[in-house]
Amino acid sequence: MLTHTYQTILRLHHTDAAGVLFFAHQFTLIHEAYESMMEAIGFPLRRLLAEKTFTLPIIQAEAHYTHPLFLGDRVTILLTVDQVTSSAFRLHYHLRNQDHLLTGEAKTVHTAIDPANRQKIPLPPELKACLQAST
Amino acid sequence: MLTHTYQTILRLHHTDAAGVLFFAHQFTLIHEAYESMMEAIGFPLRRLLAEKTFTLPIIQAEAHYTHPLFLGDRVTILLTVDQVTSSAFRLHYHLRNQDHLLTGEAKTVHTAIDPANRQKIPLPPELKACLQAST
Amino acid sequence: MLTHTYQTILRLHHTDAAGVLFFAHQFTLIHEAYESMMEAIGFPLRRLLAEKTFTLPIIQAEAHYTHPLFLGDRVTILLTVDQVTSSAFRLHYHLRNQDHLLTGEAKTVHTAIDPANRQKIPLPPELKACLQAST
Amino acid sequence: MLTHTYQTILRLHHTDAAGVLFFAHQFTLIHEAYESMMEAIGFPLRRLLAEKTFTLPIIQAEAHYTHPLFLGDRVTILLTVDQVTSSAFRLHYHLRNQDHLLTGEAKTVHTAIDPANRQKIPLPPELKACLQAST
Repeated sequence: MLTHTYQTILRLHHTDAAGVLFFAHQFTLIHEAYESMMEAIGFPLRRLLAEKTFTLPIIQAEAHYTHPLFLGDRVTILLTVDQVTSSAFRLHYHLRNQDHLLTGEAKTVHTAIDPANRQKIPLPPELKACLQAST
Repeated sequence: MLTHTYQTILRLHHTDAAGVLFFAHQFTLIHEAYESMMEAIGFPLRRLLAEKTFTLPIIQAEAHYTHPLFLGDRVTILLTVDQVTSSAFRLHYHLRNQDHLLTGEAKTVHTAIDPANRQKIPLPPELKACLQAST
Repeated sequence: MLTHTYQTILRLHHTDAAGVLFFAHQFTLIHEAYESMMEAIGFPLRRLLAEKTFTLPIIQAEAHYTHPLFLGDRVTILLTVDQVTSSAFRLHYHLRNQDHLLTGEAKTVHTAIDPANRQKIPLPPELKACLQAST
Repeated sequence: MLTHTYQTILRLHHTDAAGVLFFAHQFTLIHEAYESMMEAIGFPLRRLLAEKTFTLPIIQAEAHYTHPLFLGDRVTILLTVDQVTSSAFRLHYHLRNQDHLLTGEAKTVHTAIDPANRQKIPLPPELKACLQAST
């Protein structure tokens, strides 16, 4: 299965008055990792939205928070493809700070739909092959 | 000229690690006031985006910050139409907290464009009339 | 167990280029419902952050997305206390649009910690009693 | 005067249902450039917030939008120090896409304050020297 690494920095707008990452922004960060992965395998979201043959909305998302992230932290997100079915796939993300400490985990489940009617459709075979490829 | 009042509450996601409103979110808050005004006068943004006869992108925005906003503050935004020209209008916003203290101001300039080619077009007369109406 | 209802409107900044709610913002919306509930029972987050005797960081979050939310949609969030243990509680959220259609669900797990050392502590009894009260 | 270059990519969460950058997020992007600059000159915001000897809140911000930014666009932000006074400085940002087209501009004015009482104080001389340095 595919893996992909994404690096970013925790910015002020990711924090809140409690002084650490606002929990919802961990989902924003992992989605950046997902967008980066989709570009890397030749399926940039911009093209998907323009071509309108399929889109991949998230139907489930979950996260665990194990250590706070602070302003300025260097965050490395390891994305791994967890499961691929006929019309959906699940991604698993591990977030680590500059000390290689696990700060959180997340999962997202994406289903292929026809954007015209929002009905579930099979995953395009080329995308499926990319997600299942070993790296 | 039209005026419109909008009320909201400062939420955790509006704050940052400095403990107060993150400056960019003042723009998000005033845009909510703008959306609320456009609904009130019969031009909800959703319909504008769906009908595609014109949209009103912001070409200029500015803000002043005079007093910090804290988590839980009750914010009242007074929107006033500042200027209306053939193809554009300027809105002025005053933000006050629950103690009626001015916490910030902002302005946005919106130009009517044809979303198909992003060229400037005249403001629809019905919209122009609404913006210029006394309230 | 406690229930709490929160109402909001889907604004442009909640949407993305796919034309619907960006998935991470469902977490932002349910956190507003949580903040509103905490205020209603007399534990506004602002006071918790100021007093520093305990905070309630989210250690787990999950969401399901069953129907898209569009710009301008009226969203009603029903929050129910799902589970209360000695030092944690779980909240369950149901989101419905103006047609009473379920658009999504979410859960958050909050643990009481001492903000000074981030160690787990028992839930304050008064808070526990409020969460367990029938409404 | 100091200049600093920052590069980023326009992500889905920066866009809205109109299909392009949501205007308030241009302020979020330029603030990332500002944070990156402050780190580069040895004044990371995290340390400023921790040490509490001074902070640099934004008291004015403005932006112009000259060309839309789309999902996936490579954005280069050139930050230049525009003006430095005894207790404040103004930064000017130019945003360009991968085709070197100017998509927007922005300015922010920052004032040094004592976070304990939020009173204006002189800019620390070391910071002032860094901002005024030629690069």
